[in-house]
Amino acid sequence: MAPTKKGILERLNAGEIVIGDGGFVVALEKRGYVKAGPWTPEAAAEHPEAVRQLHREFLRAGSNVMQTFTFYCSDDKLENRGNKLTFTGTQINEAACDLAREVADEGDALVAGGVSQTPSYLSCKTDKEVKAIFKKQLDVFTKKNVDFLIVEYFEHVEEAVWAVEVLKEAGKPVAATLCIGPEGDMHGVSPGACAVKLVKAGAQIVGVNCHFDPMTCVKTVKMMKEGVEKAGLKAHYMVQPLALHTPDCDCRGFIDLPEFPYALEPRALTRWDMHKYAREAYNAGIRFIGGCCGFEPYHIRAVAEELAQERGFLPAASEKHGLWGSALEMHTKPWVRARARRDYWENLKPATGRPHSASMSTPDGWGYTRGHAELMQQKEATSKDQLKQLFEMSKKK
Amino acid sequence: MAPTKKGILERLNAGEIVIGDGGFVVALEKRGYVKAGPWTPEAAAEHPEAVRQLHREFLRAGSNVMQTFTFYCSDDKLENRGNKLTFTGTQINEAACDLAREVADEGDALVAGGVSQTPSYLSCKTDKEVKAIFKKQLDVFTKKNVDFLIVEYFEHVEEAVWAVEVLKEAGKPVAATLCIGPEGDMHGVSPGACAVKLVKAGAQIVGVNCHFDPMTCVKTVKMMKEGVEKAGLKAHYMVQPLALHTPDCDCRGFIDLPEFPYALEPRALTRWDMHKYAREAYNAGIRFIGGCCGFEPYHIRAVAEELAQERGFLPAASEKHGLWGSALEMHTKPWVRARARRDYWENLKPATGRPHSASMSTPDGWGYTRGHAELMQQKEATSKDQLKQLFEMSKKK
Amino acid sequence: MAPTKKGILERLNAGEIVIGDGGFVVALEKRGYVKAGPWTPEAAAEHPEAVRQLHREFLRAGSNVMQTFTFYCSDDKLENRGNKLTFTGTQINEAACDLAREVADEGDALVAGGVSQTPSYLSCKTDKEVKAIFKKQLDVFTKKNVDFLIVEYFEHVEEAVWAVEVLKEAGKPVAATLCIGPEGDMHGVSPGACAVKLVKAGAQIVGVNCHFDPMTCVKTVKMMKEGVEKAGLKAHYMVQPLALHTPDCDCRGFIDLPEFPYALEPRALTRWDMHKYAREAYNAGIRFIGGCCGFEPYHIRAVAEELAQERGFLPAASEKHGLWGSALEMHTKPWVRARARRDYWENLKPATGRPHSASMSTPDGWGYTRGHAELMQQKEATSKDQLKQLFEMSKKK
Amino acid sequence: MAPTKKGILERLNAGEIVIGDGGFVVALEKRGYVKAGPWTPEAAAEHPEAVRQLHREFLRAGSNVMQTFTFYCSDDKLENRGNKLTFTGTQINEAACDLAREVADEGDALVAGGVSQTPSYLSCKTDKEVKAIFKKQLDVFTKKNVDFLIVEYFEHVEEAVWAVEVLKEAGKPVAATLCIGPEGDMHGVSPGACAVKLVKAGAQIVGVNCHFDPMTCVKTVKMMKEGVEKAGLKAHYMVQPLALHTPDCDCRGFIDLPEFPYALEPRALTRWDMHKYAREAYNAGIRFIGGCCGFEPYHIRAVAEELAQERGFLPAASEKHGLWGSALEMHTKPWVRARARRDYWENLKPATGRPHSASMSTPDGWGYTRGHAELMQQKEATSKDQLKQLFEMSKKK
Repeated sequence: MAPTKKGILERLNAGEIVIGDGGFVVALEKRGYVKAGPWTPEAAAEHPEAVRQLHREFLRAGSNVMQTFTFYCSDDKLENRGNKLTFTGTQINEAACDLAREVADEGDALVAGGVSQTPSYLSCKTDKEVKAIFKKQLDVFTKKNVDFLIVEYFEHVEEAVWAVEVLKEAGKPVAATLCIGPEGDMHGVSPGACAVKLVKAGAQIVGVNCHFDPMTCVKTVKMMKEGVEKAGLKAHYMVQPLALHTPDCDCRGFIDLPEFPYALEPRALTRWDMHKYAREAYNAGIRFIGGCCGFEPYHIRAVAEELAQERGFLPAASEKHGLWGSALEMHTKPWVRARARRDYWENLKPATGRPHSASMSTPDGWGYTRGHAELMQQKEATSKDQLKQLFEMSKKK
Repeated sequence: MAPTKKGILERLNAGEIVIGDGGFVVALEKRGYVKAGPWTPEAAAEHPEAVRQLHREFLRAGSNVMQTFTFYCSDDKLENRGNKLTFTGTQINEAACDLAREVADEGDALVAGGVSQTPSYLSCKTDKEVKAIFKKQLDVFTKKNVDFLIVEYFEHVEEAVWAVEVLKEAGKPVAATLCIGPEGDMHGVSPGACAVKLVKAGAQIVGVNCHFDPMTCVKTVKMMKEGVEKAGLKAHYMVQPLALHTPDCDCRGFIDLPEFPYALEPRALTRWDMHKYAREAYNAGIRFIGGCCGFEPYHIRAVAEELAQERGFLPAASEKHGLWGSALEMHTKPWVRARARRDYWENLKPATGRPHSASMSTPDGWGYTRGHAELMQQKEATSKDQLKQLFEMSKKK
Repeated sequence: MAPTKKGILERLNAGEIVIGDGGFVVALEKRGYVKAGPWTPEAAAEHPEAVRQLHREFLRAGSNVMQTFTFYCSDDKLENRGNKLTFTGTQINEAACDLAREVADEGDALVAGGVSQTPSYLSCKTDKEVKAIFKKQLDVFTKKNVDFLIVEYFEHVEEAVWAVEVLKEAGKPVAATLCIGPEGDMHGVSPGACAVKLVKAGAQIVGVNCHFDPMTCVKTVKMMKEGVEKAGLKAHYMVQPLALHTPDCDCRGFIDLPEFPYALEPRALTRWDMHKYAREAYNAGIRFIGGCCGFEPYHIRAVAEELAQERGFLPAASEKHGLWGSALEMHTKPWVRARARRDYWENLKPATGRPHSASMSTPDGWGYTRGHAELMQQKEATSKDQLKQLFEMSKKK
Repeated sequence: MAPTKKGILERLNAGEIVIGDGGFVVALEKRGYVKAGPWTPEAAAEHPEAVRQLHREFLRAGSNVMQTFTFYCSDDKLENRGNKLTFTGTQINEAACDLAREVADEGDALVAGGVSQTPSYLSCKTDKEVKAIFKKQLDVFTKKNVDFLIVEYFEHVEEAVWAVEVLKEAGKPVAATLCIGPEGDMHGVSPGACAVKLVKAGAQIVGVNCHFDPMTCVKTVKMMKEGVEKAGLKAHYMVQPLALHTPDCDCRGFIDLPEFPYALEPRALTRWDMHKYAREAYNAGIRFIGGCCGFEPYHIRAVAEELAQERGFLPAASEKHGLWGSALEMHTKPWVRARARRDYWENLKPATGRPHSASMSTPDGWGYTRGHAELMQQKEATSKDQLKQLFEMSKKK
């Protein structure tokens, strides 16, 4: 890092807006480098050019943070998924750090080393065992001298706290985001209570990432903020939501939607939806604003464009984008030219092109199973024989 | 090109399936390198790494054709769009050829040099003037020794014929695709008649690209095939449609939809929609099957996977993709594991997540205007005074 | 009938608009007097007050024709449906005639005796047997002296021709409507050819009823008109469509939609949709304009209101209806008052309130079965073993 | 009333289910007897046969309560609406009582005299003045000896309390329903607090009617029940919701939806939706279960059929209805016969037939206005000049 680059806390303490990046696993799955089941980041070592290019696109779009592509990059996860890997976890972690640093140095961005939830926690390993996993990743981040650390995509606040406790030891700033919604973590701990635990464990920045649409995520971070403030604590806030509309999620988020992970296309946010998200997050007092699954570079650019006033500048990729569609002003067709204005795009409800699709799904999982059982009982209760009897009784009345 | 690589006509004459690539301008707009209004390809010279990477992704996904990123790369277009360009048209055309060749040589792909419709034609320049524009691009393709040529994205068959006549002179195979639907070109020439003109002009491969969804494009190519066969001619057929559902288009295609070009997200095809498209195209006798706007690498991979039986192999990127969702077999949640099967994805109608959106739009343009005028007339005809009179008359009856 | 009342042909010959009534079986099913499976009209005898009331509502709404409630009222249908009937077919037919006459005499309406398709035809009875059935109903209509006759809801033009031939003998005007769409009758006879056969058999008025939405029905009658005119014949035209949006029907109409008959609610036309229908029918040269299944009295009133200019008066029930929503002018809430204008209602696309519903269904029937079989074959063709082989082969490449 | 007929409280105290009727003003508007703006019930005197017939249909469908058609039948409302009425308020109230009694005596139903909110309250008249209005209606109910009284469709609990206080004096049982949702009355009094006030004022039965869809209404009554029980009070509960899906309402209910009142068709509940509603209401401990706007006789029949087990009999109109679609068992088409089963209808999500409609609307009213103002401010904040500046500043960075 160039000596003049300000650190993450310096920026946030100064009230600056920090723009995050988008979701690497989903973007790279579509580009052919990540497998949707395991969602592991071996591409950092196998296909560095693809990962480097995606970093660059986010940098051009306005990102101030290059997260190392180390999602699910713990040994237990890498092995558990049946991958036949050419590279070790450590090799992948190291390659990811190098790529992030290389591109960060091309602009005004910091490198953040990230750890995420582990299969070991879910299979009830002890805190010692789980912490050892985080420590192994941390050793790479320390060696590669990342600028700060992110604990992200945790469904259980307990595991996230363990991660914060480990990462804290490196003496770098630590951010922590859970993949939860307003109903709290998988043990029912509320967003406010989760945030308090994370701050007490040592995280300077808290928030949520993934699993829910932008407005739901902002709402959840607001609840975190209220919890932290009510507890008399202080923190910075961050949000990195899905770039998908998920009004029909249950508490476990988009994983349970029937469209996950291969038919989520129609839910994708437009750039104009992103403007609304960026404004909403900003108004909620959140200053680290980025994205997760579904975010493509143009989504991050839209965030940067919405907040251009507050930041005082536009990202490099805005050269290739007319604000609010102004690039259409030179279109040959007059009715397309007529779309080169803010209120057109702001108010448009885009048609889905899908007359055989509904707007919402029913999440599956155990909820579904329960409903099914009840259904079966009701059916028995109104069997044909009983109904015949009823008709007979009705006639006698 | 390695000496052993078969040419495009050798492949098609042998009955092989040739898989095209996807739409560069739309994909690179989202990545931050193309401006949506002008849609010009200066990125080939300005940001070669971004263009190279996209070529590579399509190659990995199964493409046998690397189209030079020379869309709208004629001088009249480049200037007309108000671009302040660092590079000349020739420089961009040359850079695009080099990138396509570099990646084609990494696998089993051919390089195709492409020209597209010109503003000069629309502003009624003579055939001599318009042909000079194509000739200038052709000189680059000849110098760079591309493998074959594509005349694509023409709305007027007359201009496309001129382009074929020019390109034909280079002695390389020529393919020609119009951006029309079943109603024919902008002068009302039917698909069948258009195809006959193109074949007579010297195109060995004819078809359609862009403007309509896959099934509409396949239907249009079928009409072309019928026309060519009825005329006692012979040709190969190709199709490179949108990766968007556009059941609500009028004859001018997706340009007239209110969502063009910045809010088309919900219309994006899933990979499973692509399987249906690939099968439909194959069944129609089309053997050059690719994509245009909206196609991302994973869409091309889906085409290659659907036709893997016929081709005898899978593309490289299938390593990172379980066929029909089989990668989900190892998911931790049993109800997500249950999605690892063909009939699940084949029958799923994905929810749009957009309860405030309709499934179809009304295309705008002059049709809209006409309807509006009629509406105004009707309104006058039932003005309040007249209705009061009616009530009075009704009472007297 | 009062001696001054003009007959149906006098009206149509004079260029007058004749407004029909709506669908009795569906309206009375919702009111509790008709059973949805058999759809038989025994209510005319069992619950005359309910049938009389519905006649009155249509009269108030503007209907000039009271159709006898004798749908499916042939002995073969009444028996075949497993009904335990208190009344004979003749008693029901007679009661229906009396009710229609009673209400017709309260206003400017004619009585039309109607016959519909028979199970006997479908079970391949001879023309003699089928004609005997129509003759039996005709005897009642003659005895009760109805004003004219309607042959309606025939899917096979041959059976409709037989019915016309029988009814013709009574010397009263005969109208004939098939329940077909643009693809023609169940034997593939085109609408134009069907109409010619009916006119030649002696029908003075021809058209379609039921099975499709208004715009589709108007389109079909236009095709009939073209056929009749091309054959150098003359006729009057009528249309009595569904009051349901059915863009997703196949050639057999709404019967094959999965929602038939108990979940069609969201498809119901608004009164404003009816204005568009009435205008379209009028512009197509149709002068006998009514409705079938789904039409409630307010739908007929909307037809009468749209054509009030042409007719010179409004129906009685318009006293209880502000034209184009003008009754809202006195609403307490200003934003509801703002809805009291034509363009508001004319342009509103009403929300469905159903986020889990799609806009279109797939009709079932043999088409479904065929698709399923193809699906199964494809599945076998891409079984797991074959795919494993493919991967192996791919690797060798 | 026959001496053996049990009173409303006797029934509820014995744990019996009491089935209400449906919404008269909306049903009669569609039949041509009520005007949508004023929504006043002069038809009771003007067209008694139409009102009597609707009562009979609900009786046949299973209703145990014939509510007098006296909605909005206070002098201030009748005059305020600009009606030129042939009958006085008292005449209409009396005629409505006679009709309800006549039909109630044909079966097992009670007569309930109803009062509703007044314009006088909204224009800030004193409690004395408002109570005088209710007293005048009560005098008719006393003279006509109705069986019990219903205070219904109040948005302000204060006015409802005044009505209960007046009606209470007659010594007959009093039920009180507000047209509120979970957010409470128009002054923000919660459903629980509202219910407590009503019970303390003397209502023996409390609940909600109109304005929201069935599930929202049941939820609101549950909140009322919790409030009453928490206060250590006792009451019976009733619910009479809309027969419309309104997931997109704000706190003022369906009045604010853009489709109110003339384009609500696609939101109508099917009979199968009604089964779910009836079960949900029953499970919530509600025993007086009826309907309001949008309920047609077949909707009430569906409620009675769902609860046939608990009640021990089916309504008369079930003779004309196969339970769960069993009437289709004899259909000629095998794929229609296949629909004659419970799970088919229970799981069907009916298509809307409306590809240009969204599933949800944005309610208008002041919320809309506020949003609009904010929008305007934002727009100014990102005016073109400012954006140009930004670009300049960006370049300097």
